[in-house]
Amino acid sequence: MNIILYHYWRSSASWRVRWALELKKVPHEKVAINLLKGEEKTPDYLAKNPSGYLPCLMVNGKPLGESLAIIEWLEENYSVNPLIPGDSFERATVRRLAETVNSGIQPLVNLDVVRKFSDDKEKQIQWSKYWIERGLGVMEKSLGKMERKNSKFCMGDAPTLADICLIPQCYSALRNEVDLSKFPICKSIYEFALSTPECAASIPERFQPEA
Amino acid sequence: MNIILYHYWRSSASWRVRWALELKKVPHEKVAINLLKGEEKTPDYLAKNPSGYLPCLMVNGKPLGESLAIIEWLEENYSVNPLIPGDSFERATVRRLAETVNSGIQPLVNLDVVRKFSDDKEKQIQWSKYWIERGLGVMEKSLGKMERKNSKFCMGDAPTLADICLIPQCYSALRNEVDLSKFPICKSIYEFALSTPECAASIPERFQPEA
Repeated sequence: MNIILYHYWRSSASWRVRWALELKKVPHEKVAINLLKGEEKTPDYLAKNPSGYLPCLMVNGKPLGESLAIIEWLEENYSVNPLIPGDSFERATVRRLAETVNSGIQPLVNLDVVRKFSDDKEKQIQWSKYWIERGLGVMEKSLGKMERKNSKFCMGDAPTLADICLIPQCYSALRNEVDLSKFPICKSIYEFALSTPECAASIPERFQPEA
Repeated sequence: MNIILYHYWRSSASWRVRWALELKKVPHEKVAINLLKGEEKTPDYLAKNPSGYLPCLMVNGKPLGESLAIIEWLEENYSVNPLIPGDSFERATVRRLAETVNSGIQPLVNLDVVRKFSDDKEKQIQWSKYWIERGLGVMEKSLGKMERKNSKFCMGDAPTLADICLIPQCYSALRNEVDLSKFPICKSIYEFALSTPECAASIPERFQPEA
């Protein structure tokens, strides 16, 4: 299969798919779309992904948008490192935790939304901080109720779709002045994840264009 | 299995699960949680669903939040009327369309977010209208690019997860003064869906408490 990822180094949804591609060991090419230059609004990109959002995966020339849809597709096509493991209720729990970030936090703090909310940088940070803290509070409580024992990731010692959503959100939290120590389970998962090779290979800084 | 749905008549994510339960012919009980009375913030409800959002499905006493996670669980456990049908790429497309609503529109127009944005009723409507029109525009373009021929639903003549997200969002669009005729494919799917028995059995008005 010919696979191309359209992404941006700082887009948290792009990071999710970069990490998933590492975990699934999928040979692919990466193409950067610079959000600061508005490259996601060019006719060429919109022809691929009408939402104008990142990421977008081209699979044999056919475009697929929305990071969770992409990762479910990877899960169905690449069996190594299952990202939605377990029995049906555990799979549902992984998806629930993923959606706590995917629909509960990220849409509220993306660049378009924050800019629409206010032109004032300080107000933008307060808005983002509020929604990130609300959402990470939900993650922390949900993880606290689970029988995780000393799990290194959200569910067990291997990363799942839940971690793939959580880790980029923690990174975005730090940029928005959130004190992660208020969310100790999330913080410990974040720190552990960054020490693993597949996550480390997908972090934003590795894809930051040179100044 | 013992299944209880916690829902609210006007919550669009609740409607998604009501419709899915009808399509999957799942015997269940419904419990109303009145958002206008703040019942979703009671310790009793938060113990079930730490997000404080609706809906929540209790499966043999174990709670499951997030409408898409619930519907994926239903899909894995009840084979009648497949909601994520087709080959792997078609399944990904269904999930992409669903996420266009689930993460692309709904989080931005829910009650909490709209109230946080402004106390002014008119500003609230303008904000909601902006994001609904942006998202329905993406849906319309995405559907327009697909080989749908005269499909009655998003993909073919039976409802999928994409329709389950789209229809409650169209209903919310109308409440927010959006002119659906700007989105003719979405509008025709909306009108057809309402004429089907499973969708009609799940519409908000059927669950509105008496005045």
